Amino acid sequence: MKKINVDALFLGPKSENRKFFKEMLDFMMDEHIHWRRDFHPEDEPAVSISEQQDKDYMETLEKTEEVLLELTNKLKVSSMPWFSPRYLGHMNSDTLMAANLAYMATMLYNPNNVAFEGSPATGPLEIEVGLQLARMLGYDTRKSWGHITCDGTIANYESIWVARNLKSIPLAVKKVEPGLVKDMDDWQLLNMTPDRVLDLVDEAKAAGIFDKVRDYSVRGVGMLNERLGKVLVPQSKHYSWTKAVDVLGIGNDNMLSIQVDENFRMDINHLKNTIDGLISKKIPILAVMAVVGTTEEGAVDELQEIVELRREYEKHGVSFYLHVDAAYGGYARTVFLNDKNEFMGWDNLKETLHDLDILHQETDWPAKEVYEAFKAMPEADSITIDPHKMGYVPYAAGAVVFKDKRVLDLVSYFAAYIEEKGASDPELLGSYILEGSKAGAAAAAVWAAHLVVPLNVTGYGAIIGRGIEGANRFYNSLITEKNFDAGGRRFKVEPLTKPDFNIVDFSFNEIGNSSLKMMNEFNRKIYDLCSFHAGPVYADDWITSKTDLSIKNYGDAPQEFTSRLGITEREWEQVHDVYVLRSCVLTPFLVKHTTYEAYWRNFMKTMRKKIARIVESESLKKAA
Amino acid sequence: MKKINVDALFLGPKSENRKFFKEMLDFMMDEHIHWRRDFHPEDEPAVSISEQQDKDYMETLEKTEEVLLELTNKLKVSSMPWFSPRYLGHMNSDTLMAANLAYMATMLYNPNNVAFEGSPATGPLEIEVGLQLARMLGYDTRKSWGHITCDGTIANYESIWVARNLKSIPLAVKKVEPGLVKDMDDWQLLNMTPDRVLDLVDEAKAAGIFDKVRDYSVRGVGMLNERLGKVLVPQSKHYSWTKAVDVLGIGNDNMLSIQVDENFRMDINHLKNTIDGLISKKIPILAVMAVVGTTEEGAVDELQEIVELRREYEKHGVSFYLHVDAAYGGYARTVFLNDKNEFMGWDNLKETLHDLDILHQETDWPAKEVYEAFKAMPEADSITIDPHKMGYVPYAAGAVVFKDKRVLDLVSYFAAYIEEKGASDPELLGSYILEGSKAGAAAAAVWAAHLVVPLNVTGYGAIIGRGIEGANRFYNSLITEKNFDAGGRRFKVEPLTKPDFNIVDFSFNEIGNSSLKMMNEFNRKIYDLCSFHAGPVYADDWITSKTDLSIKNYGDAPQEFTSRLGITEREWEQVHDVYVLRSCVLTPFLVKHTTYEAYWRNFMKTMRKKIARIVESESLKKAA
Repeated sequence: MKKINVDALFLGPKSENRKFFKEMLDFMMDEHIHWRRDFHPEDEPAVSISEQQDKDYMETLEKTEEVLLELTNKLKVSSMPWFSPRYLGHMNSDTLMAANLAYMATMLYNPNNVAFEGSPATGPLEIEVGLQLARMLGYDTRKSWGHITCDGTIANYESIWVARNLKSIPLAVKKVEPGLVKDMDDWQLLNMTPDRVLDLVDEAKAAGIFDKVRDYSVRGVGMLNERLGKVLVPQSKHYSWTKAVDVLGIGNDNMLSIQVDENFRMDINHLKNTIDGLISKKIPILAVMAVVGTTEEGAVDELQEIVELRREYEKHGVSFYLHVDAAYGGYARTVFLNDKNEFMGWDNLKETLHDLDILHQETDWPAKEVYEAFKAMPEADSITIDPHKMGYVPYAAGAVVFKDKRVLDLVSYFAAYIEEKGASDPELLGSYILEGSKAGAAAAAVWAAHLVVPLNVTGYGAIIGRGIEGANRFYNSLITEKNFDAGGRRFKVEPLTKPDFNIVDFSFNEIGNSSLKMMNEFNRKIYDLCSFHAGPVYADDWITSKTDLSIKNYGDAPQEFTSRLGITEREWEQVHDVYVLRSCVLTPFLVKHTTYEAYWRNFMKTMRKKIARIVESESLKKAA
Repeated sequence: MKKINVDALFLGPKSENRKFFKEMLDFMMDEHIHWRRDFHPEDEPAVSISEQQDKDYMETLEKTEEVLLELTNKLKVSSMPWFSPRYLGHMNSDTLMAANLAYMATMLYNPNNVAFEGSPATGPLEIEVGLQLARMLGYDTRKSWGHITCDGTIANYESIWVARNLKSIPLAVKKVEPGLVKDMDDWQLLNMTPDRVLDLVDEAKAAGIFDKVRDYSVRGVGMLNERLGKVLVPQSKHYSWTKAVDVLGIGNDNMLSIQVDENFRMDINHLKNTIDGLISKKIPILAVMAVVGTTEEGAVDELQEIVELRREYEKHGVSFYLHVDAAYGGYARTVFLNDKNEFMGWDNLKETLHDLDILHQETDWPAKEVYEAFKAMPEADSITIDPHKMGYVPYAAGAVVFKDKRVLDLVSYFAAYIEEKGASDPELLGSYILEGSKAGAAAAAVWAAHLVVPLNVTGYGAIIGRGIEGANRFYNSLITEKNFDAGGRRFKVEPLTKPDFNIVDFSFNEIGNSSLKMMNEFNRKIYDLCSFHAGPVYADDWITSKTDLSIKNYGDAPQEFTSRLGITEREWEQVHDVYVLRSCVLTPFLVKHTTYEAYWRNFMKTMRKKIARIVESESLKKAA
């Protein structure tokens, strides 16, 4: 297998690829400029050379220049240096040159992928991207369907929109043509498998009653008349899910949070107990949502167990829609695919990753559960996956992929001014998706990225592998470091969990301190010195992000972590909230041109300096 | 008043401003390149010069180049020549250089406006854009709030999300603390004015029960438990409204279409009758939606009448939320604002537009109703307005603006990893809006556009005025042309209505033909020859869009139009569908460097040529 050269893909932390970048940009701009001139060469210019010398013409150009310089100043003063390995905070890093250049070049043509007429060039690229993602996620590309969304939040809405409307179809069929579902009671209708519901849609079409059925589904009658059941999500869910059930009219009361275990993965026993409890009360389950790569911890839910659970329940007449929110982690599936895009066997996976120099010999990743979870992804009915996260393309590009494209009929609408007579062409995107107008440039950017960087271990896997490697080493160093001196006092550091993936959360504490409140305050101060809080981030030595893990969101899952930091159970029970620093290791440059050991030494030096500053300011405060 | 020079704002139909464009782009790219290098200058590059000579490094760069050249080829083959005055189809034209350059420059910094940490530079620009739009729309900027959305569809969803949750608040208050709404029955609670509901929210907050109230609103309990009433929209609504009531769980059954009159504006009498009918059945009105600039006709609903109607109903204890979908027409309000951003008086408006050389002396625009409608916009509770339409910025940038920012409390959610302790900062955009991650570059593009082009008659008004002027002349020519010869036969052409704005719909018919089916087929053939259907659009002489006006969507409103084309009422009643060509005149270059008369002559010449081709192919068919 031949790996792509990751270093050649980005502009780089020191603008290493500036010549290539600027040459390509220049050429593509010229391409567009001449394309305009070549369209009906007989047409006169709209502005003559002499008009361009007019005073007010010059003034307008000057005004444009002035505003753009003001903008570039603003950008330079306070943008986040995501390109640098000194940034280990949110889900950001440098983005692919191919994607940035494709976006810029396409923007001048300004296609709108809402309909084919607005985007004869880029509409088909978006359809292609959907299929590329479907293939990478293990779906059958003849049956599946996917597209770019403006973000993962909207992708999540779209999946639950489909799930909700799907759940309401059997009851609607019963109203319109009971014969199609004869001998089935409401409980059975509300527990049809998603596949079976889509077959039923086909049957309703064959019987010529589908339009009417749709009118009796939630789409027509609203959420007033049917109780479609509960949406089950892990405690570690992204906050878009709380918004989603509000927006979709399901209501937050109908979303139940499943506890996470000490690895911050959904607790399968709690999930099972919750489902059993609902069944005993004859409350249906609208959908179960699993996360691949939680926002705060990068945890990977044990999807394989949920798939197995559903299989078991279906034997007993209970089913539900299964969605995977892999907005963050989805692209990491490429690490598991060989150059023929086959999911690699467990036995030779680590060897292959070592041989390709993606993971170092001593790096122990992945855990078997994580491997199995990624393997199980094609069993889900839909998956959210964000190219603007681990796809290394610029904002805004989320995506959603559905296993069975027949779901389109549940949510499609047509407008006369974009509809082609008799056509039900997926390139009329606006008719099949939640959004309307959408940038064709975003599709072109993702398409170019996917063409340059193969969606397997030789491409994206090699980029993402560097982050996984970095995160795992960072974790090992945190575990090993244990205690250290700073500002004349003694401190310790602990990672939250072994990363399933590429996020490392950790907290510092002063040795001997057993106050959780003081520990939280201490970490908040560290964060303040490693973020825009300290002033222009540009001056910072190291930049991170943070989060709060509270009982409200996580139950007692963080307690084991706080106890490792010297916080008693009683103290946890009083405060119920722990402040952690959070590093998403997306940068492919963490240990380029230095050793990992040097990076770590530098990191600890920075931390000691920051902590000494905090100690000093506290002493000053006491003295005052 | 000093007008901006419109010609200097765009790259131009013949890339007239190519030097300025490329120089600025080059400079801004260098700014970014050096910004990276200046961040911790002591850091080593991640890739050495010698590594850049490696064979696989070169191969990866070559691959990137190869893919980008493939992309630029695709773009050139089939993109729409929106920059050219030969394109009079969808809502597209050239976009502002300031916006394109701002987008490209910002993209390299790749800010994410979901939260301040992702966008210290561009987050504040989005807040500023929201206020700029609010001011232009006539809102009190101390009280209002707006932001960029990925498109107008999502903006519409957000407005109806707010309207729905707002409507459910009084009932929720009654459940939690009946004392706050004592002596009010459910009908009264469901007919509180939006202002009064927001006061009630303040009272609930003061009483410390607002969180609980919110839990009992739709957001908490879903759409199951309350009947919030009907959403009234004109027949001419954008299809996103059909999607909106589905997505929001309201259901299409609860959206009622109000007839449009012969001008394709909402029929106020029918609106009134519908409201009266609902009141008599004690069915509340959740919201009324008016359109400023319908998608298909550019019609402007008589908002002033709806505002007056609401005022009247409120005297009798009936109220509703009022939203304006000005996704298309919103920016045209700038035509009515003087350089102090005041709405100009009716008496001197036309004179001012003539004096500024925006409209010609003989152009009779606007109609008084259109003027009054734009004037009444600040009475609406919220407004959708798309910068990527008449804001002349590239996709994707819609926007929504709310009159009273207190509505934020009805839809806000917070995530621990982005929340600032104690902060309820509007720069945490993701917590207050429907979307999550969003391109800071889009905000920067709109911000730059607004700074270069004032949001009044001296700026946007001057650009948009050119389109209005073009559309009105086009309409007059269609009216005047009447009958003409082509391919040895005789034809006529008729415009649908006098444009409220800048869209002209029209159809051709052969004189003597009274078959609506044949007329539709004929216009479809013309469209095929003036669109991508005929092959690469790049070869076309003139490019347009089209739509169908059917009884399903429009009732009998189009009948008067078909009768002018020689179609009998009986024929209309049999076919109930008319195919029209649709020209949105956004281009500011329609009559630059030529006279309008020459443009028209050229247009008719093209039409005669196309029609002759159709006639010929029909004759060939008969001969065969």
